Amino acid sequence: MKALIEKIQMYGKNLGNGILKVDSFINHQVDPLLMDECGQEFAHRFAQINATKILTAEISGIAPALMTGQHMGLPVVYARKTKPITMPDQVYLTVAPSHTKGRLTELIVSPEYLAHGERVLIIDDFLASGATILGLVRLAQTAGAEVVGVGTLIEKSFEGGRRALAHLGIPVESLVCISSMDNGAIVFCD
Amino acid sequence: MKALIEKIQMYGKNLGNGILKVDSFINHQVDPLLMDECGQEFAHRFAQINATKILTAEISGIAPALMTGQHMGLPVVYARKTKPITMPDQVYLTVAPSHTKGRLTELIVSPEYLAHGERVLIIDDFLASGATILGLVRLAQTAGAEVVGVGTLIEKSFEGGRRALAHLGIPVESLVCISSMDNGAIVFCD
Repeated sequence: MKALIEKIQMYGKNLGNGILKVDSFINHQVDPLLMDECGQEFAHRFAQINATKILTAEISGIAPALMTGQHMGLPVVYARKTKPITMPDQVYLTVAPSHTKGRLTELIVSPEYLAHGERVLIIDDFLASGATILGLVRLAQTAGAEVVGVGTLIEKSFEGGRRALAHLGIPVESLVCISSMDNGAIVFCD
Repeated sequence: MKALIEKIQMYGKNLGNGILKVDSFINHQVDPLLMDECGQEFAHRFAQINATKILTAEISGIAPALMTGQHMGLPVVYARKTKPITMPDQVYLTVAPSHTKGRLTELIVSPEYLAHGERVLIIDDFLASGATILGLVRLAQTAGAEVVGVGTLIEKSFEGGRRALAHLGIPVESLVCISSMDNGAIVFCD
């Protein structure tokens, strides 16, 4: 998606070790109009999958998921990383390694909002190793829901996430693909 | 705001101790269309304050802040509760007591996204004691920015937040006001 590529070219920073700093328009500071455009694009790409719910992970997945939900008219559930007191005792919980945090994080969803038979579209900011998204897939499957698509803003193709998701046999869409971040560069896929 | 009152009447749960469970449409599960309506209402109410930026706190402030930012054409900054590795070493940090967590939480903003002279509109989900919002005010003031308005989805007037913000002398707008949650009830203000 052209607008997102341009933002990355202008404001994205390669911090090394595969970490792309996009906190002036995606996380920490968010550009709502850009996120809206991304949500519209996801809604277009996933118009045919008959999703009934959007699932994401806090925190930085919330903005693109919310805008996608708005355009598709679907509720958005974000997996929590800590269990708030408003959540029931019995929850769906899995752990996933966090690349940017260097440790395992929990992903928790209340059974109230993820039900048997739902058709789940997963939206997140990054597709890197796929670990977070596979965690969300496990949560959905535990609930008896079916994951019918995965959409991410930025795919780092060199981290293998697409391969890790291939066995699911569902559409995986990224709005921008980066093929290399070696030597301080940000190289977009052909 | 009528749509939000109706949602609370239908799906809100009084968990006791002043805690209102709204995680089927505001946090955990989010209703994007309702949040969009709330954002539109905030944009209407704050049309005259010439804000240059919206500030909120992760996690549950993000949805209403993002939608308000979309309608006002303003960037949204959410204060982080932990410092990610993409953030510079030198940050603005304050602590605020969390009612629902029963402990102090940190609120952290990068100086990159909160600058001297900015006119800040604070948006959050709840106005309870006002502690989180006063924390955001301190961050803005430390950055040399001016807070020009506060908007919250739900005010619990019995917790005194509006009084705690009065000295700021700025408009404080809530879309719904709850005057009592005694004995399991949810009583809306007149």
